[in-house]
Amino acid sequence: MALQKGRKNCITDVEGVLVGHKTLYEKINDEETICTGVTAILPHPGNLFYEKVHAACHVINGFGKTTGLIQIEELGLLESPIMLSNTLSIGPVVEGTVTYMMEQNKEIGDAAGTLNVVVGECNDGYLNSMRLQAVRPEHAIEAIKNASNRQVEQGAIGAGKGMICFGYKGGIGTASRIVTSANEKYTVGCLVLSNFGKGEDALFANFPKKKNPNSTDGSIMMIIATDAPVYDRQLKRLAKRTAAGLGRVGSHMDNGSGDIAIAFSTANQYSHNANSHLETIAYLRDDHKAMSQLFQAVVEATEEAIINSLKYAETTVGQFGRVIEKAPL
Amino acid sequence: MALQKGRKNCITDVEGVLVGHKTLYEKINDEETICTGVTAILPHPGNLFYEKVHAACHVINGFGKTTGLIQIEELGLLESPIMLSNTLSIGPVVEGTVTYMMEQNKEIGDAAGTLNVVVGECNDGYLNSMRLQAVRPEHAIEAIKNASNRQVEQGAIGAGKGMICFGYKGGIGTASRIVTSANEKYTVGCLVLSNFGKGEDALFANFPKKKNPNSTDGSIMMIIATDAPVYDRQLKRLAKRTAAGLGRVGSHMDNGSGDIAIAFSTANQYSHNANSHLETIAYLRDDHKAMSQLFQAVVEATEEAIINSLKYAETTVGQFGRVIEKAPL
Amino acid sequence: MALQKGRKNCITDVEGVLVGHKTLYEKINDEETICTGVTAILPHPGNLFYEKVHAACHVINGFGKTTGLIQIEELGLLESPIMLSNTLSIGPVVEGTVTYMMEQNKEIGDAAGTLNVVVGECNDGYLNSMRLQAVRPEHAIEAIKNASNRQVEQGAIGAGKGMICFGYKGGIGTASRIVTSANEKYTVGCLVLSNFGKGEDALFANFPKKKNPNSTDGSIMMIIATDAPVYDRQLKRLAKRTAAGLGRVGSHMDNGSGDIAIAFSTANQYSHNANSHLETIAYLRDDHKAMSQLFQAVVEATEEAIINSLKYAETTVGQFGRVIEKAPL
Amino acid sequence: MALQKGRKNCITDVEGVLVGHKTLYEKINDEETICTGVTAILPHPGNLFYEKVHAACHVINGFGKTTGLIQIEELGLLESPIMLSNTLSIGPVVEGTVTYMMEQNKEIGDAAGTLNVVVGECNDGYLNSMRLQAVRPEHAIEAIKNASNRQVEQGAIGAGKGMICFGYKGGIGTASRIVTSANEKYTVGCLVLSNFGKGEDALFANFPKKKNPNSTDGSIMMIIATDAPVYDRQLKRLAKRTAAGLGRVGSHMDNGSGDIAIAFSTANQYSHNANSHLETIAYLRDDHKAMSQLFQAVVEATEEAIINSLKYAETTVGQFGRVIEKAPL
Repeated sequence: MALQKGRKNCITDVEGVLVGHKTLYEKINDEETICTGVTAILPHPGNLFYEKVHAACHVINGFGKTTGLIQIEELGLLESPIMLSNTLSIGPVVEGTVTYMMEQNKEIGDAAGTLNVVVGECNDGYLNSMRLQAVRPEHAIEAIKNASNRQVEQGAIGAGKGMICFGYKGGIGTASRIVTSANEKYTVGCLVLSNFGKGEDALFANFPKKKNPNSTDGSIMMIIATDAPVYDRQLKRLAKRTAAGLGRVGSHMDNGSGDIAIAFSTANQYSHNANSHLETIAYLRDDHKAMSQLFQAVVEATEEAIINSLKYAETTVGQFGRVIEKAPL
Repeated sequence: MALQKGRKNCITDVEGVLVGHKTLYEKINDEETICTGVTAILPHPGNLFYEKVHAACHVINGFGKTTGLIQIEELGLLESPIMLSNTLSIGPVVEGTVTYMMEQNKEIGDAAGTLNVVVGECNDGYLNSMRLQAVRPEHAIEAIKNASNRQVEQGAIGAGKGMICFGYKGGIGTASRIVTSANEKYTVGCLVLSNFGKGEDALFANFPKKKNPNSTDGSIMMIIATDAPVYDRQLKRLAKRTAAGLGRVGSHMDNGSGDIAIAFSTANQYSHNANSHLETIAYLRDDHKAMSQLFQAVVEATEEAIINSLKYAETTVGQFGRVIEKAPL
Repeated sequence: MALQKGRKNCITDVEGVLVGHKTLYEKINDEETICTGVTAILPHPGNLFYEKVHAACHVINGFGKTTGLIQIEELGLLESPIMLSNTLSIGPVVEGTVTYMMEQNKEIGDAAGTLNVVVGECNDGYLNSMRLQAVRPEHAIEAIKNASNRQVEQGAIGAGKGMICFGYKGGIGTASRIVTSANEKYTVGCLVLSNFGKGEDALFANFPKKKNPNSTDGSIMMIIATDAPVYDRQLKRLAKRTAAGLGRVGSHMDNGSGDIAIAFSTANQYSHNANSHLETIAYLRDDHKAMSQLFQAVVEATEEAIINSLKYAETTVGQFGRVIEKAPL
Repeated sequence: MALQKGRKNCITDVEGVLVGHKTLYEKINDEETICTGVTAILPHPGNLFYEKVHAACHVINGFGKTTGLIQIEELGLLESPIMLSNTLSIGPVVEGTVTYMMEQNKEIGDAAGTLNVVVGECNDGYLNSMRLQAVRPEHAIEAIKNASNRQVEQGAIGAGKGMICFGYKGGIGTASRIVTSANEKYTVGCLVLSNFGKGEDALFANFPKKKNPNSTDGSIMMIIATDAPVYDRQLKRLAKRTAAGLGRVGSHMDNGSGDIAIAFSTANQYSHNANSHLETIAYLRDDHKAMSQLFQAVVEATEEAIINSLKYAETTVGQFGRVIEKAPL
């Protein structure tokens, strides 16, 4: 009994969520090509530092460099955009995001304390001349400024520009599901940056076995958004269900893969500045059937987001003239 | 590219591993029926306390009462059989296993210190009159004494006697896979106690949607054995891959499910009594391709063990004359 | 600036919390002596299964057999008394507690699903003939029934009867602290079962170095109760602060020690049966200064509870005529 | 029974370990002062990417932005220097360290895959005009190039330039301990970046209570090095003992504190390039008494390193003419 899809079948079906891309694609010379980018996911259009959202994360396989998860784990809050890029660009993307947030919030680094920035990554070093460190802080800022609630562009775009999945062109994919229960309607959206898998492992298609030229194990970042009223402990439960979605497409979570999920809820925002010593939240009971349906929604949206990341990715030429083809889907 | 199966397609394909069942099945009166049991998995036929094995665990969903995982996590060692039974029998099964181990080892509780016993469970309260607490310490001891390296009996037997999976009779299932790499041949076996899922969720069959009479969310225990030389950190990596196997059969890891994996390796035993202050182990490099194949083996063996737990389970009548049918597989 | 102590300087200063002991002490023959017991901590006097409390745990060193923590971690709830006893009695104490709870709640194991019982332990095998497994299920039930909100009896009583701490008689100790902030008054109580440490390690006294006859590393269970409105994620933060209290008395958290903390809040009870799909809680902001004071209260109460477990413990004679003396405090 | 100190009482007593500082200190105008820096800890003088060391981490309180811990947790390896700086400089320090490592290793980002960089931080925003983001990638590289095995300079230097501890000038501190057991001599070193605590909380001195002008909760980074043959699981045990050291100086691990420990062993290096599919390690048995002594060494070295970070820190003037005084020790 698959759940109903959201209107755009997209993470931006979750009210308020915005996604922005900045793509870098330039042939430098016969050897080097910049083929990478940045993608930003914003939980809402307001001030993310002053209006934080509840969040949680789950590391399925930790061969990855994602930054910012320690504080999410401790405080259960997200206070920045979630940024995605290539592995060697964590530094500049952190710097750009810090700069953006400091411009918006003059008190950060001063009276308001510090800021926790979240950046995830995959390795696009087969197509992208990653050692050039082409991504600069301003590209992160551009991705944030490009964010909108429209249908998200998928495939070889933003952080997905140079990614490879099941031997074909992968990258950004998204999907959403609707849970109707308890006289309420909740939306769950998933956005992935896909960069893993061997063709013959795919369970959703009959891809041929290749003599893989692009042999690293790859990774996947999975961002889950929902408007259901769930708090950090419950969001971790949602984040963990991405593993089942990964299993359904055929992943074995190979050694070299950074398989990392981050989940947030747009319900129950948490203000940086207190009005009282107490906060009040309303949250869905864990034993209500809507909770297991939210889990199902995560599984299904993750599975489809991965497939979509292939479906919408066009054939791409990278460094040394290497070509990764569009999947035959 | 599915991996090759082991000779018996069974956790006992891993050299040394033994499995024993004790089934309790008795109609007491028109209302009450004892329909439960105990299953014991022994890593090797020797003295388990004096020759420990490396082990790890992973809790996918922690709505469960499994005991003994804290010490596995801390020391990376298993020093008892892994026992499976019903939820309300953790106490007697711990007691029986402690008694068995103390009889074997006169120094436990004295010069040799204490003992960590591992017991997992699922809720068989639909078929079994669980409140009768029919499982007694001696049943645990019998299950251990019944252990052999033969083909494991599957389905409605031992701890699986009263379990239900995807609306049909579930229980004990097992499967194995062979990894040949690095001039070595490694075996991975999985044994599950299956007790979860709604019929319409199954991805491996077209089960009809039922008006579920047996509505609790259920659980699954997944035991992974291997002879590959991997140590505790690596065994946790194996344990985590069961989530992908669960995803492949269609589980959403519902709220009320205790989805718990324990993995051990029979390579590199660890003696309770030291000959030296140092131990030496040889272990497989994480970046060797055999490691990702071990991960694949876990995913495939978990998936098939679950399916086998249905395939071999016969229609069973429990308390109040309730009937759970054999799955149409 | 040490915080103010509670009226009884006791975990029962937290409104509603009850503590009960059952002590077993009997010389069997010249060799064997039963010198052990059970202690029960109840979060409130009502039905613990139907009115659950928020809870969390933290394992500082996992050489321990405590059961029930997995579900606390997943759901953030405690639905049974917290039971303490000796290491080899986990089984009978689980069984007794399950039996007690089933008598109180006819739906457990049936319509109401299962029950998660929490039992912690230390090794009293130096004084107690632990292999006799003298603790039976009914002793657990007696400890629960003995529970009251009076000043807790400390030292060589209940689960503490056979414990040893810093080479002197240890066992049950308790202390409490008051946090006044935010126009509110919060109480934090700690109860420990102390069983660790070498005399020369104590930082709070000048104990002599002994040729230790009782050389195992020992353990400590630390139970934190509060009426402050904090939820499971925050309670884990409280539980983690016990490590600083342990550090202050001089513990190095030796290899063989099971150093485990469980924290619960009596604010915001959670009903087993739902009135609505939503629950509402009010909770203290993490950035309010009262939160860090709660942390301080945990550190101080843990430190003093350990010292009290020695201060109130009388010289005790155990198996083989072994004597552990009262600490010179 | 305190353990013996190392020759230099310094993390560089662990053979091979190097430490380098780069201090930035410049008054820009009457308001702004750059008062910050970078500190680099290198596990050995060789190629850190090709000769990795076993490592582990432990987050005591996760109000921090440390990056690189996910991969340490997964693989148990450290393959870069451990870098320390201020909170808003994580980005540039990651970038500089990546650049340095890529220059050393032409295959990173290409045939050799990616690189995991570890950067920890504390908030020096009271003395340092942190919003200026004065730390640039080249400063990270300088800190690495400055590294030596000499006596480490302590106090207001490197990343410690702007830090405050117990209301006095803190920053970099270090200490070491010797464990002699099992016919072996093992060294444990600790280096901290201290930036936490209120004066009245100190247990090692009678500091007065201040009307704190510098009211954020602060943080501490604790780096543990040892030459004892312990692997990642065991190193996590060492890392966890820093909490007791923190407790001994008087920390309550306040809400806003990022209290994070990273431990590595210089025994058993792990080559990036395999000679075989197997690795062999010799490691200390957990139940050998030397293990608990290593734990004690961590507790003592952490405690003293924190005290030393005050003892050696000179009175420092920062932004807006703010003065933090040398502690009266």
